[in-house]
Amino acid sequence: MKWCLVASLLTVLTSSQGILTTLSQTNGKYKYDYATIPFLAEVFKLIVSSVFLWREPKKSPPPKMTTDWKTVRLFPIPSVVYLIHNNVQFATLTYVDTSTYQIMGNLKIVTTGILFRLFLKKKLSNLQWMAIVLLAVGTTTSQVKGCGEASCDSLFSAPIQGYMLGILSACLSALAGVYTEFLMKKNNDSLYWQNILLYTFGAIFNMAWLVMDDFRGGFEKGPWWQRLFNGYSIITWMVVLNLGSTGLLVSWLMKYADNIVKVYSTSMAMLLTMVLSMFLFSFKPTLQLFLGIIICMMSLHMYFAPPTVLVDMAPTISSDPESLVNVPVDRKTDSR
Amino acid sequence: MKWCLVASLLTVLTSSQGILTTLSQTNGKYKYDYATIPFLAEVFKLIVSSVFLWREPKKSPPPKMTTDWKTVRLFPIPSVVYLIHNNVQFATLTYVDTSTYQIMGNLKIVTTGILFRLFLKKKLSNLQWMAIVLLAVGTTTSQVKGCGEASCDSLFSAPIQGYMLGILSACLSALAGVYTEFLMKKNNDSLYWQNILLYTFGAIFNMAWLVMDDFRGGFEKGPWWQRLFNGYSIITWMVVLNLGSTGLLVSWLMKYADNIVKVYSTSMAMLLTMVLSMFLFSFKPTLQLFLGIIICMMSLHMYFAPPTVLVDMAPTISSDPESLVNVPVDRKTDSR
Repeated sequence: MKWCLVASLLTVLTSSQGILTTLSQTNGKYKYDYATIPFLAEVFKLIVSSVFLWREPKKSPPPKMTTDWKTVRLFPIPSVVYLIHNNVQFATLTYVDTSTYQIMGNLKIVTTGILFRLFLKKKLSNLQWMAIVLLAVGTTTSQVKGCGEASCDSLFSAPIQGYMLGILSACLSALAGVYTEFLMKKNNDSLYWQNILLYTFGAIFNMAWLVMDDFRGGFEKGPWWQRLFNGYSIITWMVVLNLGSTGLLVSWLMKYADNIVKVYSTSMAMLLTMVLSMFLFSFKPTLQLFLGIIICMMSLHMYFAPPTVLVDMAPTISSDPESLVNVPVDRKTDSR
Repeated sequence: MKWCLVASLLTVLTSSQGILTTLSQTNGKYKYDYATIPFLAEVFKLIVSSVFLWREPKKSPPPKMTTDWKTVRLFPIPSVVYLIHNNVQFATLTYVDTSTYQIMGNLKIVTTGILFRLFLKKKLSNLQWMAIVLLAVGTTTSQVKGCGEASCDSLFSAPIQGYMLGILSACLSALAGVYTEFLMKKNNDSLYWQNILLYTFGAIFNMAWLVMDDFRGGFEKGPWWQRLFNGYSIITWMVVLNLGSTGLLVSWLMKYADNIVKVYSTSMAMLLTMVLSMFLFSFKPTLQLFLGIIICMMSLHMYFAPPTVLVDMAPTISSDPESLVNVPVDRKTDSR
């Protein structure tokens, strides 16, 4: 059950990501350029994967590394999908407010399940489908605006384009995940070699994004490499290392487990962040957070528990209509 | 699947009960004495059951009717439990506000499951237990106070006695239900005869309650029989007939199905009432109502669907840790 450990670690690190990001702000604002973080995280992942790959040949057999163009050309695709996703995300936010956006984000749990089924041809039982929907319902429940909170009328009153873009965003996010899983499992290349391909393109695309930002901003803040370490504190570096580490764990899960495990990890992380925020940022606990946690725990159990554990008992009277005749009724009555 | 039909009818009638009761008010107030309604409903059920029983002997074999004191003396017990429950309910409401009270009311779904297991020795699968908890979570979710609603700080800030009494109230409500099921299934007496016993005591206890009310109020409003039909409109009579009919359906379910079926019926009725209120009373639909409905539907399916429908598929890679070795990894690496 190594994937269980990796998934738990991913939950903890994803949760710290949110908390570290909040802690890295000064008076609610970033003193550094946040757009530089994903680029540095890609570089960090690239270095770590290279070190691991470099250490591998000492063992036999040597790590498998496919270098033909037919395979390598597939590796920029996740980065391209994420790039489109980021742009759709920005477009969505021009139509809907952030809380509606956050709520719609839970859709990607369901779209991941669907693409996982269609694209990777993985079969899921009815119960597992229900578990996936419940996970999305549970995370959404925890995010329901409590009473007294501001800007509550705006939920689901946005123009239809906002919702269409939100759905598109959920599909793109799921597509990137499912495609990465397909890539990682496509052959038995070394995970580190696959990572190097993935992160090289990741770093390039992130750099391109920074350059585009510079052009859009008319180089007002100077070229991106001058902003790279500007205003970085120790916590900023922790944000980078943390983001890089979650990326490496996700890669591992894509190869040795699957997208659904990743979706559970990150959903649980969201709930964990809310619970930790109660202590760290005196975030007020709500009934809906409590309900959301119960729903997600149930969903987790439904999805991963062996079917025999769930339904090993004999069906009760009500679940088995035939057994109704067990109640002795020795006559016909008008009501039967 | 006759019980399915009866349960659906119970859902519709229980739902109409809330709507009819609201419609029977004039400017948000009752023009009649609401305490007289349950008494008349008991009388209505008594009359209907008597008519059905009277029509039965025409068929053979004649309906079974146990009249010995050892059996008959058990029939006032549900009424006594309900009487205690009503008093606990009043006591609870002196400690907690109505919305907290309403939220705590969902506890009776879980307590019914527990007493059903302990008292009636019915075995439930893990999945069915999860379904029962999810039903309670779903109905609670639908009742989460939305933003902008008044009196939101009071939720879960009541004194501990309020919560203790709420739990006691949930246990008593479950006990009355489970005990009635035990009574109805104890022997194969005619349902109508059992009903007559049950409702005779029900009518007596309701009458006693009205008399007690008179004494407590110092006969200020005159004796109860003078208030009996005072201010009754056609809708008030519909409330009586509707309440009586739901009682008869519950009786039927207690004999031929079980408490869990009843709990599902009444929970679904609560959601149906909220949906109908959107149209009838321009009740604003909330995200939490939508989520609650999904959760309860999932719970319904989990509880009643045959296990083979739920888990007939082969387990996927992630639900079966053994299958992880299916991914070809032809070497040992540092990360494995």
